Amino acid sequence: MTPDATPALDPVIAGRLTRDGNGLVAAIVQQHDTREVLMLGWMDDEALRRTLTEGRVTFWSRSRGQYWRKGDTSGHVQHVRSVSLDCDGDALLVQVDQVGAACHTGARTCFDGRDLGAHPGGGAAAAGGAAAAGGVRG
Amino acid sequence: MTPDATPALDPVIAGRLTRDGNGLVAAIVQQHDTREVLMLGWMDDEALRRTLTEGRVTFWSRSRGQYWRKGDTSGHVQHVRSVSLDCDGDALLVQVDQVGAACHTGARTCFDGRDLGAHPGGGAAAAGGAAAAGGVRG
Repeated sequence: MTPDATPALDPVIAGRLTRDGNGLVAAIVQQHDTREVLMLGWMDDEALRRTLTEGRVTFWSRSRGQYWRKGDTSGHVQHVRSVSLDCDGDALLVQVDQVGAACHTGARTCFDGRDLGAHPGGGAAAAGGAAAAGGVRG
Repeated sequence: MTPDATPALDPVIAGRLTRDGNGLVAAIVQQHDTREVLMLGWMDDEALRRTLTEGRVTFWSRSRGQYWRKGDTSGHVQHVRSVSLDCDGDALLVQVDQVGAACHTGARTCFDGRDLGAHPGGGAAAAGGAAAAGGVRG
């Protein structure tokens, strides 16, 4: 090992990533046992390196422009169980054990109670009404 | 109804979207009963409108620059069960009933067999080896 080695994402993995214009890939976070989809975050190479090696999920916050290790302020940490990269390299599936709420609102997932009212064959008005009222429709 | 009305995404829903620089939001597709995460796609307003109203999932293909209704060529259609928008408006969770393989490779999901070998406390070399060999580690 060279004495000045800086931690970097494994080049084999880095070579498989298809990053967007901001150098990011999408990261879907799923509870490993219940299979709930908890949230979507974003990772650059360094966030992915930390997530693969540190046992906790780290994102790149697009709004704040900084790394964000989930749970450092809220206590709602995400323990990494596995990370997979999809066939075209632009999306990660991160299986975790989520402590507490995944959403900053306090909801278990960032999608809870946010159904848009899909309605095959129906009109647009019904969906808007459901969305405006925060209604949930199967 | 005005005679020249062109179908458009409900403005209440459109107002909740946080689109990226290309006008897109991420769409996580999940099998409604097994809760497998099948794939990640991208939608603009029109793709979302079609998905909400037509009973089948339509994406915007970033690589081909056109709408893409899943299954039109492969037969592997995705029947929409529900669509939810996350708390900050940049990700959709689309619950579907997937016919056949979700991945263009023929795999059930786009993440199957693509584990990156997360290894808390371990070295980077192990992950690279596993990724290069296509190995799966829990």
